[in-house]
Amino acid sequence: MWKELAAIGRNADSGGYRRYAWTPADAECRDWFTAQATARGLACELDRNGNQWAWLGDPAAGDAVVTGSHLDSVPDGGAFDGPLGVVSSFAALDELRRRGARFTRPVAIVNFGDEEGARFGLACVGSRLSAGRLTREQAFALTDGEGITLPRAMESAGYDPDAIGADPERLARIGAFVELHIEQGRALALPGENAAQVGLASAIWPHGRWRFDFRGEANHAGTTRLADRRDPMLPYAETVLAARREAELAGAVATFGKIAVEPNGVNAIPSLVRGWLDSRAADQRDLDTVVDAVRRSAEEYAARHGVELDVVRESFTPVVEFGDALRDELTRILGTDGGRVPVLGTGAGHDAGILSESLPTAMLFVRNPTGVSHSPAEFAEEDDCVAGVMALADVLKGLACT
Amino acid sequence: MWKELAAIGRNADSGGYRRYAWTPADAECRDWFTAQATARGLACELDRNGNQWAWLGDPAAGDAVVTGSHLDSVPDGGAFDGPLGVVSSFAALDELRRRGARFTRPVAIVNFGDEEGARFGLACVGSRLSAGRLTREQAFALTDGEGITLPRAMESAGYDPDAIGADPERLARIGAFVELHIEQGRALALPGENAAQVGLASAIWPHGRWRFDFRGEANHAGTTRLADRRDPMLPYAETVLAARREAELAGAVATFGKIAVEPNGVNAIPSLVRGWLDSRAADQRDLDTVVDAVRRSAEEYAARHGVELDVVRESFTPVVEFGDALRDELTRILGTDGGRVPVLGTGAGHDAGILSESLPTAMLFVRNPTGVSHSPAEFAEEDDCVAGVMALADVLKGLACT
Repeated sequence: MWKELAAIGRNADSGGYRRYAWTPADAECRDWFTAQATARGLACELDRNGNQWAWLGDPAAGDAVVTGSHLDSVPDGGAFDGPLGVVSSFAALDELRRRGARFTRPVAIVNFGDEEGARFGLACVGSRLSAGRLTREQAFALTDGEGITLPRAMESAGYDPDAIGADPERLARIGAFVELHIEQGRALALPGENAAQVGLASAIWPHGRWRFDFRGEANHAGTTRLADRRDPMLPYAETVLAARREAELAGAVATFGKIAVEPNGVNAIPSLVRGWLDSRAADQRDLDTVVDAVRRSAEEYAARHGVELDVVRESFTPVVEFGDALRDELTRILGTDGGRVPVLGTGAGHDAGILSESLPTAMLFVRNPTGVSHSPAEFAEEDDCVAGVMALADVLKGLACT
Repeated sequence: MWKELAAIGRNADSGGYRRYAWTPADAECRDWFTAQATARGLACELDRNGNQWAWLGDPAAGDAVVTGSHLDSVPDGGAFDGPLGVVSSFAALDELRRRGARFTRPVAIVNFGDEEGARFGLACVGSRLSAGRLTREQAFALTDGEGITLPRAMESAGYDPDAIGADPERLARIGAFVELHIEQGRALALPGENAAQVGLASAIWPHGRWRFDFRGEANHAGTTRLADRRDPMLPYAETVLAARREAELAGAVATFGKIAVEPNGVNAIPSLVRGWLDSRAADQRDLDTVVDAVRRSAEEYAARHGVELDVVRESFTPVVEFGDALRDELTRILGTDGGRVPVLGTGAGHDAGILSESLPTAMLFVRNPTGVSHSPAEFAEEDDCVAGVMALADVLKGLACT
């Protein structure tokens, strides 16, 4: 099952994955999902927002238990972020059938579309749309790096963009959503009380993306006196350093990982340096402190260099506390053999976080020995992946079987 | 003449020009050149390195007077850098014919290929090749941002790349090369002793391009603790600031105007930040001081962040002193009406600088009121452009007519 998926959208140079929404690589992943579902006799369904569902039992019966994750990737992402949850869902179903489990609730496996937001800059587009947390108008305004809008991208992939929008009927049929995901830090891997193969999520830190547009004046790099320059690269550089400094002070994280420069010529002072800040913190107050301080620094630096600055918050997700009730139930299910299941917070956003306002959601994390994610070097031990499948099978059995 | 050229390769959004070597826009500029030459009864010739020549008189007679410049541009460049020299050459010839001048030496107008180096990262490729200052092997190794090699780009534009190489026979037929160019600073525009419509070049500052590759580790921007990061954006940012600081100290210029980031995702710590330093100074010692200090700072910052650094000098041009003899002659020709012609140095490289080792060269600068260049805002007053044409006509008359 892994092997067929492993080849899709892989970049030969980096070894990383480039599975962006509504691209041919995305379509291949979707075909793989359909083939896996069909081979298991599951009924495939595509919802209005391009999310794929594979049903065991009648969706209309309601109170379904849903598991799954996403198949798309960041640029040069790893093999596990997303796909591990989908592959483990199919494997957990196989395991339950092997055990001869009898299902009392409908079960579905889901592949949410465009979770990473690598192409259109907004994460969790599929789940946001379904949960009514992204309007049709907002979605239609999304464009990729080549100016292609989301609806045009959907169309060229053979989907109908006119159908997109909130999908409360579908969500109302779901009693619980459990997403399995590779951990993206080292909490489970470091020695100590959280050391374990599998853990549960407590909360997702509040996080957001801010675009900083520094606009100066394009000019000749060889002949323009330093005093005559309005070089936006200088306040950008100072802002990058301010972000690191403020994040350290607040115990948060802040990253400038994406940049666009115009005209981006070796011998031209830039007219525009556009940098994206990603910042997250354990609580909202710390996050506000970091972002406000970075913005103030950027304003000051820009003014000093005669550069104009616009700061736009492109996305924001407040803190997500996964509900106690479902987590307590999972703790009970997974703890029956006497083992303690660690509970940890995370800085990463997930579809489960988006859906947590609409229905009971929980997350399982599988140990990541290096903590590396969003990189071709992302890795999980086979033993830990198997433990994840077994834990997910136990959870599905506990929630949906007699 | 201007009007037809003005539309070619212009970007509608920025108003700037994107005329890169061996692209369709470049081909259109070349067709324009051929049409202008043909309309004036000049014999067109394409040399082995893709430079265009338009001859009045027999090239084989030797001791030719050549003028001209280039038609390619930086990304979103202005209308004047390059084209002003070519257009003024044709206009000066028209003016001389209007005056009834009789030519005693062959005269040619030249359009040098790939002066800006916007596509392959090396400036003055056409004149470098002809002067034997770029070998065929070096030229064949040049690749553009999409991995297309120079020979493949030439082929796809219909040129034979196998022919390229040093062209001493052609250069031996040239007695003098005079390039007219818009000034790329404000020396002629600022009040003072250099204030004038037209000036002469004394020297081109030594300058070079260095590529700084900062290699860290791609990772998830939300879940990777600051202490676990090897983020190459941080030493890059510090190096940008070091370059400005060192240039100020040395009275030089230093610019980071081009950057490439991998994977360049909002929520991914970069694995690679590649920045290009362009630096120039009035003399070699100052330039060495700046570049050595920036490199040392970059090494120190990179080590502090666990980031690997490679610094590669991609191009370098030592100081070019234009010969006194030809400049003195031009001063005499242009000063006959009693006016003083200012003589100034420049930080910009030019084909005239490349050729100055092979034959007598000189440059005329036309006033630039804002000093802005390599930008859509680049501008020269019509009066000053006309003064440039008249000065060039006078020079050609003085050198090549009875």
